[in-house]
Amino acid sequence: MDGVRAMLFDTFGTVVDWRGGLIKHFQTWGAARGITADWAGLADSWRLAYVPSMETVRTGQRGWADLDELQRESVAELAPRFGITALHGDGVEELVRMWHDLPPWPDSVEGLRKLRTRYVVAPLSNGHVALLVRLARAAGITWDTVFGADIFQHYKPDPETYLGAAALLGCEPGEVMLVACHPSDLDAAAACGLRTCYVSRPLEYGPGVVVEAPPEKGRFTLRVEDLLELSRIAGC
Amino acid sequence: MDGVRAMLFDTFGTVVDWRGGLIKHFQTWGAARGITADWAGLADSWRLAYVPSMETVRTGQRGWADLDELQRESVAELAPRFGITALHGDGVEELVRMWHDLPPWPDSVEGLRKLRTRYVVAPLSNGHVALLVRLARAAGITWDTVFGADIFQHYKPDPETYLGAAALLGCEPGEVMLVACHPSDLDAAAACGLRTCYVSRPLEYGPGVVVEAPPEKGRFTLRVEDLLELSRIAGC
Repeated sequence: MDGVRAMLFDTFGTVVDWRGGLIKHFQTWGAARGITADWAGLADSWRLAYVPSMETVRTGQRGWADLDELQRESVAELAPRFGITALHGDGVEELVRMWHDLPPWPDSVEGLRKLRTRYVVAPLSNGHVALLVRLARAAGITWDTVFGADIFQHYKPDPETYLGAAALLGCEPGEVMLVACHPSDLDAAAACGLRTCYVSRPLEYGPGVVVEAPPEKGRFTLRVEDLLELSRIAGC
Repeated sequence: MDGVRAMLFDTFGTVVDWRGGLIKHFQTWGAARGITADWAGLADSWRLAYVPSMETVRTGQRGWADLDELQRESVAELAPRFGITALHGDGVEELVRMWHDLPPWPDSVEGLRKLRTRYVVAPLSNGHVALLVRLARAAGITWDTVFGADIFQHYKPDPETYLGAAALLGCEPGEVMLVACHPSDLDAAAACGLRTCYVSRPLEYGPGVVVEAPPEKGRFTLRVEDLLELSRIAGC
């Protein structure tokens, strides 16, 4: 941890449980409308559409579009496949807004609170500032500041995000640690000179589902079970 | 307050007492080095250099330069006039860093805490993100996010700052209120469609010193004595 002054946190999956949150929101929403569907399947398919939808921005096929806009397009296309038909504009917006209110993992709020006593802590997410502010307020998380992808007009893993956040914090890349449960995100940060902490989130995609293999020892600066373990290692 | 979702706060003067803070820092710094000088005069002259130094960026005479850079140049020129000679690089940095740690006015921390229970609160300052984060941590202030001028690469009163912050919050300009003790800042925000709240800070430039005349009634949406009064009006 020598020389680390700031910690950046991937958010969806690392800090909040998007899958559990979405499924719960879907159930409530469906119950109020007499709709039943494979909600877990919709959550997983929607999340699966997330990376390719960002790719269209990252590769320059389209101009800047924030996550709400991308999620809006994805869910409008996906919903009918799950038997959710006649989804109007308001319905789409209700579904998109579910990404603004997702439950933190049990250790997130307290882990971040402790880490903030010694380090500058901020999300570095592919969400936009407005979404991340709402998410933090709903979850009871306090950040020092918020780095949404819209500030950089780039999505992770573009280097502009990691280096842009370090620059805005007045830090050298090596003074910043990215904390994430996705090895690919951490690899991209490491390539920019950031320190890296892998946090295990075995339930992110549902029990027993592994999307990215956990990293071998030594691949990242740190490897922890949760944010409370990180706070202990970091001396908070 | 109808429809207001977020409040942005000018910082130097409105939230923190730059003058009292600088004078105190100068005294401590001078005492450790056996230097005495007209510290209040230096603080006032330094602050006076602030607007013209930003003008060189605002008018395009130079590229982006953050407040540390501008303050560095100003103080290096001013210090000798106050008898502070042989100021080396480290000394200049020590002085510049004093702007990163300034005391909040007595009502600021509690006022902002209350306002944050109902509104998104963030600074909108000509300071940069790194400075503002440090300032908030030192003062015990919790923001939802931080808008430094470096995010927009524009200084207030450029419209890019007011409109840029509203856009990042996902708000229409009319859903955002700027809170400031400087009528000129509020006028520029109002011209962009923001609501405005004038807060009286009679000690900003020292007892009895008026730099901008207080605004007549009705010029701004609200006019309050301090942030606690604002929190009461805002129903927090």
